[in-house]
Amino acid sequence: MAYFEFEGKQVYYEVHGEKGEPLVILNGIMMSTLSWKPFVKEYSKNNVLILVDFLDQGRSDRMTESYDHSIQVRLVDALVDQLPYDKVSIMGISYGGEVAVQYAVHHPERVRRLVLANTAARTSSWLRKIGDGWNEVAKHKDGFAYYLTTIPVIYSTEFFEKNWAWMEGREKTLTAYFSREDVLESLIRLTDSSRDYDYVDKLHKITCPTLVISSSEDALVPPTEQIILHENIKHSTYVTINGSGHASMYEKPYAFSALVLGFVNLGDEGISI
Amino acid sequence: MAYFEFEGKQVYYEVHGEKGEPLVILNGIMMSTLSWKPFVKEYSKNNVLILVDFLDQGRSDRMTESYDHSIQVRLVDALVDQLPYDKVSIMGISYGGEVAVQYAVHHPERVRRLVLANTAARTSSWLRKIGDGWNEVAKHKDGFAYYLTTIPVIYSTEFFEKNWAWMEGREKTLTAYFSREDVLESLIRLTDSSRDYDYVDKLHKITCPTLVISSSEDALVPPTEQIILHENIKHSTYVTINGSGHASMYEKPYAFSALVLGFVNLGDEGISI
Amino acid sequence: MAYFEFEGKQVYYEVHGEKGEPLVILNGIMMSTLSWKPFVKEYSKNNVLILVDFLDQGRSDRMTESYDHSIQVRLVDALVDQLPYDKVSIMGISYGGEVAVQYAVHHPERVRRLVLANTAARTSSWLRKIGDGWNEVAKHKDGFAYYLTTIPVIYSTEFFEKNWAWMEGREKTLTAYFSREDVLESLIRLTDSSRDYDYVDKLHKITCPTLVISSSEDALVPPTEQIILHENIKHSTYVTINGSGHASMYEKPYAFSALVLGFVNLGDEGISI
Amino acid sequence: MAYFEFEGKQVYYEVHGEKGEPLVILNGIMMSTLSWKPFVKEYSKNNVLILVDFLDQGRSDRMTESYDHSIQVRLVDALVDQLPYDKVSIMGISYGGEVAVQYAVHHPERVRRLVLANTAARTSSWLRKIGDGWNEVAKHKDGFAYYLTTIPVIYSTEFFEKNWAWMEGREKTLTAYFSREDVLESLIRLTDSSRDYDYVDKLHKITCPTLVISSSEDALVPPTEQIILHENIKHSTYVTINGSGHASMYEKPYAFSALVLGFVNLGDEGISI
Repeated sequence: MAYFEFEGKQVYYEVHGEKGEPLVILNGIMMSTLSWKPFVKEYSKNNVLILVDFLDQGRSDRMTESYDHSIQVRLVDALVDQLPYDKVSIMGISYGGEVAVQYAVHHPERVRRLVLANTAARTSSWLRKIGDGWNEVAKHKDGFAYYLTTIPVIYSTEFFEKNWAWMEGREKTLTAYFSREDVLESLIRLTDSSRDYDYVDKLHKITCPTLVISSSEDALVPPTEQIILHENIKHSTYVTINGSGHASMYEKPYAFSALVLGFVNLGDEGISI
Repeated sequence: MAYFEFEGKQVYYEVHGEKGEPLVILNGIMMSTLSWKPFVKEYSKNNVLILVDFLDQGRSDRMTESYDHSIQVRLVDALVDQLPYDKVSIMGISYGGEVAVQYAVHHPERVRRLVLANTAARTSSWLRKIGDGWNEVAKHKDGFAYYLTTIPVIYSTEFFEKNWAWMEGREKTLTAYFSREDVLESLIRLTDSSRDYDYVDKLHKITCPTLVISSSEDALVPPTEQIILHENIKHSTYVTINGSGHASMYEKPYAFSALVLGFVNLGDEGISI
Repeated sequence: MAYFEFEGKQVYYEVHGEKGEPLVILNGIMMSTLSWKPFVKEYSKNNVLILVDFLDQGRSDRMTESYDHSIQVRLVDALVDQLPYDKVSIMGISYGGEVAVQYAVHHPERVRRLVLANTAARTSSWLRKIGDGWNEVAKHKDGFAYYLTTIPVIYSTEFFEKNWAWMEGREKTLTAYFSREDVLESLIRLTDSSRDYDYVDKLHKITCPTLVISSSEDALVPPTEQIILHENIKHSTYVTINGSGHASMYEKPYAFSALVLGFVNLGDEGISI
Repeated sequence: MAYFEFEGKQVYYEVHGEKGEPLVILNGIMMSTLSWKPFVKEYSKNNVLILVDFLDQGRSDRMTESYDHSIQVRLVDALVDQLPYDKVSIMGISYGGEVAVQYAVHHPERVRRLVLANTAARTSSWLRKIGDGWNEVAKHKDGFAYYLTTIPVIYSTEFFEKNWAWMEGREKTLTAYFSREDVLESLIRLTDSSRDYDYVDKLHKITCPTLVISSSEDALVPPTEQIILHENIKHSTYVTINGSGHASMYEKPYAFSALVLGFVNLGDEGISI
């Protein structure tokens, strides 16, 4: 519903709700502010919800040259700077979690709570190859091949079986979307921007209470990666959403939302047994 | 802070907070309303929190003869009846979860949300033997033997290692408590009241949204039991708290509380993707 | 080292070793008899090892039209028929496990022991889409894109990190191999032959002792699929190789081989406690 | 079938079979050479099987004073010394695995293969309390209480449900056995001998190929302990027997035996991919 200028680019963001702890949500690579539509009402009931499109994502400006995560981290910094809060809570899923980790490392004083869902502290050499595969397929400008290569893998077998019609709808919509050359170029750049990410050794700089979320069936960023986050972030707690693939917010919206909103809305005094 | 009369017995309960969805908490077998002291402030911030001691527990009356779960289920019914709500949310942990399951089966119209933590749909023949062991040890009126037999097993190795001093304090306090003959007699009756519990075939009568919580290191009621709950309760979602033993609310108070409060405070409209 | 004729096609197979229980190994889709080279000496020490290339695989004849699993099942039948044994043990991995399941359902009297590694009782709608993706990419005749889409996903992150040089070698070799049009056409047909596979309801016909093997990090055929095998095959036992991806025999050759050879070489009397 | 003298005590051991790699099996605390009766035929078919009773166990001499693991480690050393082999393979389960770890640390040149099942590199403070509980109960000389406290916990819920009659038999036999004062005194000493065990920092001295076995439902020595073994023993591989409790050899004799015999009988050349 609004744009702000950032390094010469227009960044799209939305603010929903009027009271409660502010919660900034950072998207996965194939998502946008639109992806959160089913969640907005619930998430803005007791919180001020801030959604944002990264560069090359949704309604934010496209880039033209390659970049790495750091520009998205600066974008988050600029976004937080212009919000009227000393601190915000941040939930990042997948790509958004990677950016959230880096923002929390560099600006620990601005982050009240951190929720890291289906994400990692690094792009492993394995994940880099998976991303290279997406980009190699993208070069053929075949939206259907790109859809089949990138989307089914983020859902669990069980979800696929149970939500066949919904997945068919996604296939139609996304195949059309991925058939646009500008979209594929953005996705190539976004994917490439993760290539050199490795913050394992910097996780100790995160100081806020942090919730790490795994999905039991995440084939893209498996629990072994979330364990690295949990073991290296001091005040972290770690849960698993069972029976879910990578897209946990879609597969298990109740469990996902209970965790995110419940964690963000716990008071600052904590619970000492 | 108050008592109500139930079948000739005095039942102790507490009501904390003034606004928000009402949340009734049902205790594990060795717990009481006192166990929730560190949680009261947080849980009554946005909810009306109702704590209660089962018969033979805390400040409620002791029984003199053996009984089964059904009397505790009627107790919950009486409690809910005298509260000014059509519906309440219920969180039951361990023994409390078993009672919660039965209440929700028999009074589905009174339960808005159900959270079942570290609990089961039945007392397996294995768990029955474990309980028989507790009671056989109790007969020797040796508070220390009873402590060692019943308490360490409910914590994870990791928690024990990290909270050594706290566990030593528990050992002292609980050994003294378990050395009281009346306490042991109550615990024997409470344990025995679970012997014949088996609601696996009735779980389909639970209609409200339900959250099932496992702990990865629960040595007393392992995840295999929670899977039975999840697979048979229609609107259930299922998460695991990692690195926690049976006493998840003590071992991982942040993850536990985020889940309970987050789930209870999700709106009634749900989230449809 | 030998060929036999089957429905007008030449099928390549190898027999190694001279004594012990005969063990037939059925390959995964991207494998061939050559894949077992590092294993031959060990597996033929105490067993007669029989390797075979499916149609469209290795040195067996290529097909020209599409087919389903049933032709490969008949191929196995023909192979076993010409071996001098009443019964053989069969180990099938991935695609080979799917064929092994079908052979054991239809010829239970010929199978002494069955080992099913990283395989499934059905092609789920999810896995079908993954396969469709491989074939869609194959159409672009880009060996590198095909390699990136099909190969990294079958290894675990940990294996990739630790065996970087070996994986680089695979990338070079397989990219060249996948750049051959005839190879891609064979792989398209092999992948398509799995599309309609669903033997869940027939698993009860398997009567021999069966070992089901999962890998904890299998992103292609996750443990949820092996659980279906285990729960429906009467005399089955079920283990997980930890820290391994889909290609368990390459990632954890010791654990894999101990399981396969240990299980096949257990005597027929069984162990009764 | 034979005894050897060790530090003034008679140690009972058995040798079965005549050919193949020698395999020494070290018992869990409540076991003895008798426990392996159902396994002897299978394990001595292709191997020389050596069973032994620790001091205070089975037919070996009872002790009179307390001791720690080191005396059992010396016992193993004496046993191996009088066998006609330069090297032996050792499989230790639970308590026997703890002794096996120590033997392999101090005598790496004598161990060809090591299999560590349901065991740990240390007695955690948690496990120490569990053991203290067993001993506190033992003081009451109530064989049934001791049975209920020590035995059901080593089986999985599923096994208990499915083998109810067998468990009832165990209850009768073991309650009688645990009602003998000398037996309880031996068990108290055996349990106490584990109190100070901690070899985590010495695991790097183990040089032979090692197989670490977890059970998914082990409530006594959970997989978190086996992970410590695997991460610190250089040439180790790590598997999980699914659906099994602590007594894996009884719950899943096929999977257990396939692993043990398969691993021990892999050749020395290894498998290099």
